[in-house]
Amino acid sequence: MTAKHVIIDCDPGQDDFINLMLVAAAPEVFEVAAITTVAGNVPLALTTHNARLACDWAGWRQVPVYAGCPAPLMRGLATAEHVHGATGVDGLPPATPGTPLIDTHAVPAMIDALRAAEAPMTLIATGPLTNIATALIMAPDIVDGIEQIVLMGGARSAGGNITPSAEFNMAVDPHAAARVAAAGIPLVIFGLDVTHQLRMTGPRRARLRAIGTPVATVIADMLDSTANRMTFAADDGPPLHDPCTALFLIAPSLFDLVDCHLAVETDSPVTYGHTAVDIAGATGRPVNARWATAIDDEAAFACIEQRLAGLAAGAN
Amino acid sequence: MTAKHVIIDCDPGQDDFINLMLVAAAPEVFEVAAITTVAGNVPLALTTHNARLACDWAGWRQVPVYAGCPAPLMRGLATAEHVHGATGVDGLPPATPGTPLIDTHAVPAMIDALRAAEAPMTLIATGPLTNIATALIMAPDIVDGIEQIVLMGGARSAGGNITPSAEFNMAVDPHAAARVAAAGIPLVIFGLDVTHQLRMTGPRRARLRAIGTPVATVIADMLDSTANRMTFAADDGPPLHDPCTALFLIAPSLFDLVDCHLAVETDSPVTYGHTAVDIAGATGRPVNARWATAIDDEAAFACIEQRLAGLAAGAN
Amino acid sequence: MTAKHVIIDCDPGQDDFINLMLVAAAPEVFEVAAITTVAGNVPLALTTHNARLACDWAGWRQVPVYAGCPAPLMRGLATAEHVHGATGVDGLPPATPGTPLIDTHAVPAMIDALRAAEAPMTLIATGPLTNIATALIMAPDIVDGIEQIVLMGGARSAGGNITPSAEFNMAVDPHAAARVAAAGIPLVIFGLDVTHQLRMTGPRRARLRAIGTPVATVIADMLDSTANRMTFAADDGPPLHDPCTALFLIAPSLFDLVDCHLAVETDSPVTYGHTAVDIAGATGRPVNARWATAIDDEAAFACIEQRLAGLAAGAN
Amino acid sequence: MTAKHVIIDCDPGQDDFINLMLVAAAPEVFEVAAITTVAGNVPLALTTHNARLACDWAGWRQVPVYAGCPAPLMRGLATAEHVHGATGVDGLPPATPGTPLIDTHAVPAMIDALRAAEAPMTLIATGPLTNIATALIMAPDIVDGIEQIVLMGGARSAGGNITPSAEFNMAVDPHAAARVAAAGIPLVIFGLDVTHQLRMTGPRRARLRAIGTPVATVIADMLDSTANRMTFAADDGPPLHDPCTALFLIAPSLFDLVDCHLAVETDSPVTYGHTAVDIAGATGRPVNARWATAIDDEAAFACIEQRLAGLAAGAN
Ligand SMILES: [Ca+2]
Ligand SMILES: [Ca+2]
Ligand SMILES: [Ca+2]
Ligand SMILES: [Ca+2]
Repeated sequence: MTAKHVIIDCDPGQDDFINLMLVAAAPEVFEVAAITTVAGNVPLALTTHNARLACDWAGWRQVPVYAGCPAPLMRGLATAEHVHGATGVDGLPPATPGTPLIDTHAVPAMIDALRAAEAPMTLIATGPLTNIATALIMAPDIVDGIEQIVLMGGARSAGGNITPSAEFNMAVDPHAAARVAAAGIPLVIFGLDVTHQLRMTGPRRARLRAIGTPVATVIADMLDSTANRMTFAADDGPPLHDPCTALFLIAPSLFDLVDCHLAVETDSPVTYGHTAVDIAGATGRPVNARWATAIDDEAAFACIEQRLAGLAAGAN
Repeated sequence: MTAKHVIIDCDPGQDDFINLMLVAAAPEVFEVAAITTVAGNVPLALTTHNARLACDWAGWRQVPVYAGCPAPLMRGLATAEHVHGATGVDGLPPATPGTPLIDTHAVPAMIDALRAAEAPMTLIATGPLTNIATALIMAPDIVDGIEQIVLMGGARSAGGNITPSAEFNMAVDPHAAARVAAAGIPLVIFGLDVTHQLRMTGPRRARLRAIGTPVATVIADMLDSTANRMTFAADDGPPLHDPCTALFLIAPSLFDLVDCHLAVETDSPVTYGHTAVDIAGATGRPVNARWATAIDDEAAFACIEQRLAGLAAGAN
Repeated sequence: MTAKHVIIDCDPGQDDFINLMLVAAAPEVFEVAAITTVAGNVPLALTTHNARLACDWAGWRQVPVYAGCPAPLMRGLATAEHVHGATGVDGLPPATPGTPLIDTHAVPAMIDALRAAEAPMTLIATGPLTNIATALIMAPDIVDGIEQIVLMGGARSAGGNITPSAEFNMAVDPHAAARVAAAGIPLVIFGLDVTHQLRMTGPRRARLRAIGTPVATVIADMLDSTANRMTFAADDGPPLHDPCTALFLIAPSLFDLVDCHLAVETDSPVTYGHTAVDIAGATGRPVNARWATAIDDEAAFACIEQRLAGLAAGAN
Repeated sequence: MTAKHVIIDCDPGQDDFINLMLVAAAPEVFEVAAITTVAGNVPLALTTHNARLACDWAGWRQVPVYAGCPAPLMRGLATAEHVHGATGVDGLPPATPGTPLIDTHAVPAMIDALRAAEAPMTLIATGPLTNIATALIMAPDIVDGIEQIVLMGGARSAGGNITPSAEFNMAVDPHAAARVAAAGIPLVIFGLDVTHQLRMTGPRRARLRAIGTPVATVIADMLDSTANRMTFAADDGPPLHDPCTALFLIAPSLFDLVDCHLAVETDSPVTYGHTAVDIAGATGRPVNARWATAIDDEAAFACIEQRLAGLAAGAN
């Protein structure tokens, strides 16, 4: 198995951070060509800062980090400090990033990388899709350079987490999501239906902490911080949203996926950001995505635990 | 316990028919003031015909039947013969109704009844909400004459059954649903989330048939007809949508309900008819409905079985 | 020439009142079957009161007045007291109407009248179209009983008068207007493009006052009241909106009309109530209306003056 | 008077071409920093080709040309070959451009130029606003580098030219237009209301041809081509849309302008691309644009004639 060349477009965000650690812990799976940041969980300056910190923790020295769009295509930016804390990575000790920021905008950087790639690349998207949509607006030919987009976003049976019917990443930039959904690129989507099945319960957080490495400890700190800040149903803990994307690329068989036509509502004040997931073919529209319906959460957590234990030696 | 004075607004429809039989089987619960028909599962002429047949089967002699609106407020009529058969009540033997049709439109009839009522009445609504919305448009003062509307419609975790994100009754006339939701009337809503939990499996259909009465037999015939026409997951059978409304009024404790703010999307081509069910208070808007999340389906079926057995003697 | 049987659906309103006086002044043109009132310029109780006063002024003894819908199909009611004064007919002396109010809702009354008519009738509509749309929702067969609807509403080159892109009657109930536009009934529409050409300048108001009859005097009072309350461009005075409908039926040659496809925007917060008037065939949609583009305003005023002079003897 | 540093964002287009010639003919007014092209009247490859040809005709040697976005933000591209001919510049002899195309995307080029400018620059926009909106999405800080945007687009009293209620540039990319309108940049807008007042009648086309220079002759050829291909009202000829932007910067007093709040409809199938021009303050929203209502068309044509005569010596 050859490592996949990936660009990771993200808005760290605690779960983006954890996702990046999983990527770092699977170097035989991922060859990270670039990290691009977008406004989302916190404003762009913070997501960029946090992405650079994540590179430090990952032990990456060669991965370029580019800052992207500071606000959605059409709507004003909504953020989620109530989930991720004021810095976006509550639980992570403040630091000055050692990883530099490249002085090029993420969007042309992404376009150039995709055009220059020897083979189509995989995009991992764990924030609002503003950067990717903007790249498609500027240069639709990049579709040929993208093997697939593996993304966190949306909800069907789980309803929504920012409005009654929409998930955060989709609701923050529904136009970008709709643009990406219509681009003809194979999509693999991990929405709340599945991410809500992967819960970082107290016992699991304790197991992570027991690993004893700096990375595992700081992740346990982050998850404890969320668990203490927010209210979850008994026995539950914070769900792990973004790490489903890396987990899928590491171990696809952890997930059940179904073909669907995905459409994203852009305009309605009631349903903007809603993902209409047509599994049954009710709309008669063609399949444009694979939608995750279930995760083997015990096996998934075991994978996370094992990978983070393996990362211990190399990082920081 | 005094029987509730109810108006039943419906579009029979197999499950509307079964709901009417349950009402008939609980005369200590329901005093039926009127049945009003609306276009929905099949066109108005058929839903009206079927409602009159239902009155015959119910053994009602004094319940007035009024025909209402033949099409939704704003959209063209969509019907569901693929579910209910060409007549709307596939499985029911063709017959000429003995129950007469009153020569007054359902909407002014409903308005007059509600204004004349000694105490606020309960509306049971098992079709598109066109008639009730039109009555509210003409005479908003009838709000004072309505204790509650107990209705079948909508979906949250169940997605949709006519579009990926909308249930039939809501999608057929989303403007009417939105108008009713905004009227300030207490609503109790049974959407697909709960109706999909009440399945008429093969064994249950056999138990109904074993009752041996004409009504129970014809209901078993109807359900077998649907089971044969459509495809359901293993062990499942046709869900019973509309009968949740009568069941709730007969035995409220069968259901789990949560307070919510309900909004209905009217306009988006992607999400029209979607029910945005705000349980967590994400919108900050006031509670206007109780939303059914779960049913004790064994107890519910036992209730149906017992009630239909009791109806045997009186009907037809 | 036989008098046309007409139903006048209105929201008096000063210009509705003047329109009714013109109708009264042309008894060889109009046989008034009913007056139906709707909420619009002022709430329903006032428009109904004012319609009854107008019947008194018109000298009508046999014209039934029915009150209709108190609010639009979907939106909350917006009124226009800043134009018409607190009573809706500023300038008219307060009085108790001698004309009775029939105790039947305007909508079923309209339906019954149209179904019973020996020949299709003309509807004159000078308010929001709520009543007519509701009648169409309840009983679409009435289309066969309507020869045409001659209505005041909309704007194309004149922009709007309640929003930048919408005229009052359309904006108050855009859903009703869209429903009526889609009903397949021949429409003749007098929008702001043409009504803004018919200005009651100071000299014209003086000419009306010079007629000396009670009706002409009270109309002059009304127009002076508007002229004093609002600001108009130099040489202009209040436009006469609603009277274009009666004028057209009295003297069609006063107007230039073009065939068009009319669509009405219902949903957009920016353009709700906007009339998209397709004269050039850009949409490829069929002609459903005649749109007034110009009026011979000198001849029109002369007609008004002459008719009101003729009404003098009969009224009040 | 110092020449204004301008970036010209365009989709040539016959009238874009003529506008560029006017710019070239007023070197004391304009210092052209860049020309950026966008898909619009014809696809991007053609608008870019035509822009380079225009530079050749203008005699420009140092003006960089950058190609921009090949399609709108959200909608599929609609073009206007029925107006401009298959090449977009019908009447212009085919040629291979001497002016090179810079191998950088227009959007980052525009961002870099605006950030590097010593003083805020003027943007002249005569096509869909896709490039400018995308630049604002990527880098909202460029607002500080823009003195004003002088643009052709929209309609109020003129209705529309591609739909009943929308002008071409706005309808092709309504989202871009809405994004630009909301950016807080001073806008000066020349919509159909004013461009339809500047008609290239037969006599005027003859006067242009009589100038005798290559540029004037080819412009006369273009206008004749349009006059022959399309149908205009008697005495009219093709309107000059885009050249109003250069004319305004050359001689602002040619125009009457009013302050307004401009909003652009993005979503409605009926009104997308409609410009809601709030002159009277009906919306209560702040002034964000100056809207052209009238042109002194005789003086404007004289200006065009004189400028093109002056360009004769230098060009081609
Ligand atoms: Ca994220
Ligand atoms: Ca039903
Ligand atoms: Ca009126
Ligand atoms: Ca252009």
